[in-house]
Amino acid sequence: MKYSSEAVEKAIHELAKLPGIGRKSAQRHVFFLLKSSADEVTELAQALLDLKSRVKYCSVCFNITEQDPCDICSNPRRDTGTICVVEEANDIIALENTGEYKGLYHVLGGVLSPLDGVGPDDLRIRELLKRLSENVKEVILATNPNTEGEATAIYLSKLIKPMNIKLSRIARGIPVGADLEYADELTLVRALAGRMEF
Amino acid sequence: MKYSSEAVEKAIHELAKLPGIGRKSAQRHVFFLLKSSADEVTELAQALLDLKSRVKYCSVCFNITEQDPCDICSNPRRDTGTICVVEEANDIIALENTGEYKGLYHVLGGVLSPLDGVGPDDLRIRELLKRLSENVKEVILATNPNTEGEATAIYLSKLIKPMNIKLSRIARGIPVGADLEYADELTLVRALAGRMEF
Repeated sequence: MKYSSEAVEKAIHELAKLPGIGRKSAQRHVFFLLKSSADEVTELAQALLDLKSRVKYCSVCFNITEQDPCDICSNPRRDTGTICVVEEANDIIALENTGEYKGLYHVLGGVLSPLDGVGPDDLRIRELLKRLSENVKEVILATNPNTEGEATAIYLSKLIKPMNIKLSRIARGIPVGADLEYADELTLVRALAGRMEF
Repeated sequence: MKYSSEAVEKAIHELAKLPGIGRKSAQRHVFFLLKSSADEVTELAQALLDLKSRVKYCSVCFNITEQDPCDICSNPRRDTGTICVVEEANDIIALENTGEYKGLYHVLGGVLSPLDGVGPDDLRIRELLKRLSENVKEVILATNPNTEGEATAIYLSKLIKPMNIKLSRIARGIPVGADLEYADELTLVRALAGRMEF
């Protein structure tokens, strides 16, 4: 399915690079944009350009931010003695939405994945260890509960344990509202192992 | 889920306007773009801007094109005596890919839909009738076989029939490769009614 217009082909090609967008969806988007006003398309294009020019990474925790250090790191009411280690900046948003956590974060920028060629030096582990040497009392490992996330948590725990810092891993168990019947065995094992007294 | 960065929020907001993209997908795209190089993001933004500045509608058939009239209308080897009426420009691509049709097209720019406030004056029906007065021998109505598409085809047929032009509607029936068992009743009725002699 080739379009005679080069501009249309190019726009489809570029949009199809986005995650989860194939050629068919990209075509739909292009036809939608062709029907939109020039102003609307300019606004979208400008928003994408601004994204790249204005957003940078916090030099302390590597969260995405417009000013450095980020809102969380520069907030005097946050507990600077606790650091929650996450894989990506969007994990911070999910945790912040709970309103429960008052400490700081550290974004690894990925997980250990030897098959994809991601080793410890590709993650912000050195930066994390440097932060831990400065008056940190507790570290919460909040990488995703999948193979790579678990392996990364284990790797980090081996580095952090000798530092005499309280170290924990987020609980794995049955999600609230879910059915025991449909939970997989590994999650059930974790739920049992992590049981809490009433 | 609000981001502290205005630029991130704006980009998510703009991307979420695309059809079939919700806030969650827009967030994924934004994080993907933040990880991409500045050049890649600029290329995407430029492609979108070019789309709007370079692509226009063919003044004859209203196909999308970069030069006017479009490649199909200006191709001397096409049969100018046949016009295939479609809803949108992307329908042309689907038909062109078959390589079977050698006539011209006419893009209505939508279908009659009183509930959405789309009446005959909102479609390019007047332009179609003007073209039909100039040596056209056959019209194929290829609007989609759904309620609005059928209604639009019936509406057009009433206008075109008195003009003494051969008029046809694309066949509705069981798609090639599909199962009779799973076809809906209306499609089966159409498939029976449209049966062809061996």
